[in-house]
Amino acid sequence: MDTVLEKKLKDAVWAAHSLFERGKTSGSSANMSFRHEDRIYISASGSCFGTMTEADFSVVSLTGEPLSEKKASKEWPLHLALYEKSPEIGAVIHTHSTYSVLWSFVPSDTEQDCIPDHTPYLKMKLGTVGLIPYEKPGSEALFAAFRERIALSDGYLLKNHGPVVPGKTVMDAFYGLEELEESARIAWELYRARLN
Amino acid sequence: MDTVLEKKLKDAVWAAHSLFERGKTSGSSANMSFRHEDRIYISASGSCFGTMTEADFSVVSLTGEPLSEKKASKEWPLHLALYEKSPEIGAVIHTHSTYSVLWSFVPSDTEQDCIPDHTPYLKMKLGTVGLIPYEKPGSEALFAAFRERIALSDGYLLKNHGPVVPGKTVMDAFYGLEELEESARIAWELYRARLN
Amino acid sequence: MDTVLEKKLKDAVWAAHSLFERGKTSGSSANMSFRHEDRIYISASGSCFGTMTEADFSVVSLTGEPLSEKKASKEWPLHLALYEKSPEIGAVIHTHSTYSVLWSFVPSDTEQDCIPDHTPYLKMKLGTVGLIPYEKPGSEALFAAFRERIALSDGYLLKNHGPVVPGKTVMDAFYGLEELEESARIAWELYRARLN
Amino acid sequence: MDTVLEKKLKDAVWAAHSLFERGKTSGSSANMSFRHEDRIYISASGSCFGTMTEADFSVVSLTGEPLSEKKASKEWPLHLALYEKSPEIGAVIHTHSTYSVLWSFVPSDTEQDCIPDHTPYLKMKLGTVGLIPYEKPGSEALFAAFRERIALSDGYLLKNHGPVVPGKTVMDAFYGLEELEESARIAWELYRARLN
Repeated sequence: MDTVLEKKLKDAVWAAHSLFERGKTSGSSANMSFRHEDRIYISASGSCFGTMTEADFSVVSLTGEPLSEKKASKEWPLHLALYEKSPEIGAVIHTHSTYSVLWSFVPSDTEQDCIPDHTPYLKMKLGTVGLIPYEKPGSEALFAAFRERIALSDGYLLKNHGPVVPGKTVMDAFYGLEELEESARIAWELYRARLN
Repeated sequence: MDTVLEKKLKDAVWAAHSLFERGKTSGSSANMSFRHEDRIYISASGSCFGTMTEADFSVVSLTGEPLSEKKASKEWPLHLALYEKSPEIGAVIHTHSTYSVLWSFVPSDTEQDCIPDHTPYLKMKLGTVGLIPYEKPGSEALFAAFRERIALSDGYLLKNHGPVVPGKTVMDAFYGLEELEESARIAWELYRARLN
Repeated sequence: MDTVLEKKLKDAVWAAHSLFERGKTSGSSANMSFRHEDRIYISASGSCFGTMTEADFSVVSLTGEPLSEKKASKEWPLHLALYEKSPEIGAVIHTHSTYSVLWSFVPSDTEQDCIPDHTPYLKMKLGTVGLIPYEKPGSEALFAAFRERIALSDGYLLKNHGPVVPGKTVMDAFYGLEELEESARIAWELYRARLN
Repeated sequence: MDTVLEKKLKDAVWAAHSLFERGKTSGSSANMSFRHEDRIYISASGSCFGTMTEADFSVVSLTGEPLSEKKASKEWPLHLALYEKSPEIGAVIHTHSTYSVLWSFVPSDTEQDCIPDHTPYLKMKLGTVGLIPYEKPGSEALFAAFRERIALSDGYLLKNHGPVVPGKTVMDAFYGLEELEESARIAWELYRARLN
C-alpha cells in the first residue's frame, strides 16, 4: 500500500479511538473522512469510533459514487460538500460531542459564529462556527440546510446533533474539533454560572 | 471452541471493559448476557466490568437452570425475561450509569417513554425507555415489576438503580445503552439549566 | 515469591492504575495497603497511583515498624488502626476522590452515616460511612480523631480530604470505594439540583 | 544516549500522555520542558500531548537559542523565564486544563494566591498560584506580564488561558499541576454550589 495513504489511515484510526476513549463521542454515532488523491475514504455506515480499524473505511469518488463494497456513512453528503467547498480541505470529522450538543440548545443571535470566544484558541485553530438549523439526521433537508450555510463559516454545529469540522489533514480537523468541544464546554459552564 | 461463540465472548469482554474505562459503570455492579444457541452466557455473580475475561461468564439454560459451575449474576431473571420477550433479542446489558440513575430521580409523567428526545438518536437506536418503579435489587418484587412492564417499552430504566438494554447482539445492546446514557446526560444537563 | 502475595500485589497495582486512569484520584495523593501474613504492604511515601508498580510497596509490621528500606506513606497510622480494628480487614484504600471531597463540605447531621442512600448499593457493599472532622493530613491529631470514631462506622470520609475504605481484600476495598465515590456523586448532583 | 536524559524524556512523555488521556488538556494546546545540563528540552511547536514521543522535543540554550532543527513551542519565553527564576526549577508544564481556565473567570481579590485552599494539598505540593492578566497567547505582552509577576508566586494561572507550573523534575511539576487543577475544580464546584 502507498505509504501516504497508510499514514492517513493510521492517523484517522488514532483520532477515532482517542475521541471515543476520552468521551468526546460515544456509541456508533460519529463519522470521519479524508481525501486521498481523487478519492474520499469515509468511515463505513454503522462503524464505531471505539472499535475502528483501517478496514472500516469505505471509498467513494468526489461525486459520491461507491468505489468499495463497504457502505459509506449515510452522512457522506456533508463530507462531500466540504471537499467541494475548497481544495484546501483534506479531512472532515463529525461527532455528537456532549458540550457542543448542549450549547446548540442555548438561544443565540450570532448563527454564523455561534461559540463565544471566552478563550482565543477556537478562532486561532479553526475560525468561526456556524449553527445549522435542526433537520432529521441523514435527510436531504439537513444536507440542503448545510450547503446553504457552508460558505459562511469555517466549522459547523448541527443543532441538537453535533459538530462538523474540516481540516487540511485528519490531525488538523481533530485539533479543530478538540477546540470546538472545549470552547463549547467553557461556554456552557460559564453560561450555567452566569459568568458569561 | 466454536468461532461464533468466540466472537460473541470477545465482543462482550470488549464492551464490558469499554463501559468501565469510560466511566459508564463502576465497581462490580453491572452485568451482561448474550444468547448462543439454546444457552445464555451471563456475567458471573460479583464480576467487575473492569477485570472481565471470557472465563467470567456463567452458562444457564433458557429457563435459568445452571449449566456451569460459576454462579450467575443474581439479576439473571431480568435477562431471562427479555430473551422470553422476543427471539430477536440476543443480548442484554445492565449498568448503574450515573446520568441514567440521576434522571430516574426527576419526576416524570411518561413512564413508558421516560427519556425526553432532545436529540433523535435514542429513538433511532433503541426506541422507548420505560421507567420501572423502585424495588430492592435482586428481589422477586423487582423481577415482577419488570415483567409487568416489559411489553410496554424497548429499553428500561430501573428507578434509583440503572438501565437495562436489550439488543440483537452485544454490540447492538452496547450502542443502545450508549445512546440511553448520553440522552439521559443531555436531559439532566438541560433540566439543570432550565432549558428543557 | 509466594503466589498468594504475588496475586495481592497484582490486584493492588491494577486497582491503583484503574482508580488513577478513571479520574478517581490524581497526582501523588492516594495510598493503599494490604495485609499478608503478619506484615502490611503499603504504598511508599510519595508514590503515584498512575505509575505504581509492585516495587512501590513498603513493608511494615502490624505495629508499624519498618521492615523494608522504602519509606511507607506518612498516613500509615490510618491503615494500621484499621488492621487493629478487625482481623477481617485485609486491605485499605485512601484517595482524594473529587465527589467524596465535595460532599464532605455539605453540612450534615448524621456524622456516623454521612452519605445518603439514594441508591441501595453503598450499604450493600460497604455499610455506613463516618465523617472524620478536619485535621492536618498526616498529623497526630488526625490519627487520634480517626481512632476515636473507627468503631462507629464501616467506611470513613476525612473532611476536606477524602475517603478511607477497608475491605477483606484489595478488590473488596476497591469495590467499596467505587460505591462510596459514586454515591457521593449522586448525592452531590441531587443536592445541587435540589432533588434530595 | 545518556541514561539520565533518557529517564527525563521518558517521564515527560508519560506525563504528557497521562494528562491528555485523563482530560487535563486537549488538542495541541499544551507544552512542557525540562532542563538537562545547560540545555532546555521543550515540546516542539504544534505537538500534541496525546501523540507525544521522545522525538517531539526541541532543544534550546538557556538563553533561547535553537540547538536542534525542530522549532520550539512558541511559548518558550514562559519556560525560560522560570529557569532563570531559580536553579531549583528543572521542569515546567503548561496546559489549558478546563477547571483552571474556568476558575480564571471568577473575580478574585487575591491575585498572588488566586486558588482558595479548601483542601490543604495545593499549598503542600506547589504553594501559591498567581493570576496573570490576559494577554494574547505567544505575545510579548504576555511574556512581559508573566515576568513582572514571576517572583510573587510559586505557580501561575494565565487568565482565560491556563496554568503554568514549575517543579524540580517533570514528575514534580506534574504533581503540582494535578493539585492545581483539582483545587480549581473543587473551588469551581463549591462556588457554583455557594458553599465557598
